[in-house]
Amino acid sequence: MRAEIITIGDELLIGQVVDTNSAFMAEQLNNIGIELYQITSVHDDAAHIATAVMDALSRVDIVITTGGLGPTKDDITKHVLCELMGAKLIPDASVEAHVRNLYKDRPEVLNALTETQWLVPDNCKVLPNRVGSAPLMYWHTPEGKHLFSLPGVPYEMEAAMREQVLPVLQRESTEQITHRTIMVSGIPESKLALHIADFENALPDNIHLAYLPKNHTIRLRLSGYGVPAERVEELQRKLMALTKQWLIATEDKPLEVLIGEKLKAAGKTIATAESCTGGKLAMLLNKHAGSSAFYKGSVIAYSNEVKEHVLKVNKDYLEKYGAVSEQVVALMAYGVMKLLDTDYAIATSGVAGPDGGTPEKPVGTVWIAIANKQKVYTECLHLRGNRNAITDTAATLTLVRLLSQL
Amino acid sequence: MRAEIITIGDELLIGQVVDTNSAFMAEQLNNIGIELYQITSVHDDAAHIATAVMDALSRVDIVITTGGLGPTKDDITKHVLCELMGAKLIPDASVEAHVRNLYKDRPEVLNALTETQWLVPDNCKVLPNRVGSAPLMYWHTPEGKHLFSLPGVPYEMEAAMREQVLPVLQRESTEQITHRTIMVSGIPESKLALHIADFENALPDNIHLAYLPKNHTIRLRLSGYGVPAERVEELQRKLMALTKQWLIATEDKPLEVLIGEKLKAAGKTIATAESCTGGKLAMLLNKHAGSSAFYKGSVIAYSNEVKEHVLKVNKDYLEKYGAVSEQVVALMAYGVMKLLDTDYAIATSGVAGPDGGTPEKPVGTVWIAIANKQKVYTECLHLRGNRNAITDTAATLTLVRLLSQL
Repeated sequence: MRAEIITIGDELLIGQVVDTNSAFMAEQLNNIGIELYQITSVHDDAAHIATAVMDALSRVDIVITTGGLGPTKDDITKHVLCELMGAKLIPDASVEAHVRNLYKDRPEVLNALTETQWLVPDNCKVLPNRVGSAPLMYWHTPEGKHLFSLPGVPYEMEAAMREQVLPVLQRESTEQITHRTIMVSGIPESKLALHIADFENALPDNIHLAYLPKNHTIRLRLSGYGVPAERVEELQRKLMALTKQWLIATEDKPLEVLIGEKLKAAGKTIATAESCTGGKLAMLLNKHAGSSAFYKGSVIAYSNEVKEHVLKVNKDYLEKYGAVSEQVVALMAYGVMKLLDTDYAIATSGVAGPDGGTPEKPVGTVWIAIANKQKVYTECLHLRGNRNAITDTAATLTLVRLLSQL
Repeated sequence: MRAEIITIGDELLIGQVVDTNSAFMAEQLNNIGIELYQITSVHDDAAHIATAVMDALSRVDIVITTGGLGPTKDDITKHVLCELMGAKLIPDASVEAHVRNLYKDRPEVLNALTETQWLVPDNCKVLPNRVGSAPLMYWHTPEGKHLFSLPGVPYEMEAAMREQVLPVLQRESTEQITHRTIMVSGIPESKLALHIADFENALPDNIHLAYLPKNHTIRLRLSGYGVPAERVEELQRKLMALTKQWLIATEDKPLEVLIGEKLKAAGKTIATAESCTGGKLAMLLNKHAGSSAFYKGSVIAYSNEVKEHVLKVNKDYLEKYGAVSEQVVALMAYGVMKLLDTDYAIATSGVAGPDGGTPEKPVGTVWIAIANKQKVYTECLHLRGNRNAITDTAATLTLVRLLSQL
């Protein structure tokens, strides 16, 4: 079965909001064997929404819209779908009870506009929206198509997908899609492609290989369509053997999750001391539930004063070698490891730009350190890109080095 | 003039990558008065790419594709566009020189695959890609349509847009689009909509109002199409007067940028002490170039030991009131302000979930503090949503309170 997503909202088309919903939904659909064929983002415009929905319904079996379900005037998705599906709006007692309950501690929210939330199309199935006030709508058409309308607020959409949409679709899905991913680092994409060309050329038609380069790492994803998982796993092992000198992960999990698993299993703790990455490593390490078992904290030492007074980096070193140096980044790692009493520490100090570069240390020069009680590993990265690309890549490569040393 | 974006890549449709390119491009196009009509994400599939491009060209004047320009086998955009535009691939000496120069320090990257990068369609204009190896392609068709093909790597795409695409389109654009945005906080969306209903209903057809709620703030965006900027600004002032009790910003800039501007103007510095937000506030404050003028650093005090030993939060307080308490969050702010010797400090401590909630302090309970040398402001937030939504909202509301106190 194939699906399409239609994300609705002017905010997407003027660039005020990044569409994070689609990636979440795409991943969830793929996990249950549904291929996502296309994502379309359209304005809060009746004709445009209607065309996009009808076009999508003509191409695929499942269409999921997000957005445009708020109570305000610019949100029109419910009315458009109502007209498209030949429905009229009627009040729904269970939605009303839910909305009243949702706002029982905030009665000031209830008003003439919120009351429109419990008007629903008379020919759809209303699915409960546990965490929000907009009703989820689901049509299973006479032609056998599935049309869902979900809110655009990410956590409402996520709950709706997990609790309502996926259970419905799981019963409908038949074809098995199996993804298996490995991650490598330290080889350019094109060189890797030549290195594994024979492997790739010998793949059958129903197993596809994709290269997903990001921040100096490359995920290689094998996707099998309608083939047993074992067949994809066999090829994954072959790929692991072919790439073993660059291999850093064999599961499709974020680096920080793999690191957290290793630290937890070993009963070890970690801290970060960050200058140019400015908290990115901290955020990654505490992003997932359960991180307090291995992550104790960080010092974001953006100014030299903080490096000196909090992390106890020798002032002479700061003056002699500069903040972006092997000596200083190693002392930052030691400093935070001691201050926060952890088993491991990672540190970064670099020139993220756009200003601050010198001929000796141009923008993109980043020193990283990975320390434990016995030793410290340091490396100088020479990165390209804008401020954000440089700090993202520095954070990723620090995690890559850490993972390979755990 | 209207444009469409087509983002190409299997990674988008299986959810391994969030499409951040579209928001950037959307904003840039809007800024020069070009309306973005639709964004379509499609697979690395020849027929699918061709259909999407032809459909888009039939609807609008400008079509920009991103992605699928890498040297590996799964990247096929160049070949598809070549066929669609009736071109054949020929070597381009200037692209070759550029690619060779780009990799002069990394000769190992040059190989049979990278050499395909300097094959270009013989009937397009090749625009220089300063920061990457894939040539940018531009067709101005006999029908007057503009078709651009850009790389999917974000910083290459950004440089291509800024340096090549926008200058071309700026010469073509005629209609003036003016956006003016204000930001409010502390009123639910539906209540705000009722409060400004008369204003909204009286808007002319060519001026549109959009509500952009996020993390307990709402941006209200007025967009004027083909009307003088002064007319939109006059309405913006009216809207500011109508919403003044909730108004927190009158420019469409991120909160941290407005905060940075105020701190820099006053010559003041700031630090953060974060538990549940785990580095989000640090990252926001140092995200933009020039932040070292006002941001000195942070202590991410994820464990109680760090709160006690680094931030010098009284152990008795931690035991008596718990880490998530008014007393502790205030001491965290004072602690980091003293440790890092800043004029201001902000602190957070809360239960982000999914575990760790209690009947007295359920998941979503977050204490925040904003301190300066004279006083400390504290507030208890009661937030809903998943771990990420709670920490995002806590970070945003901390910045909202800080901004209103500067």
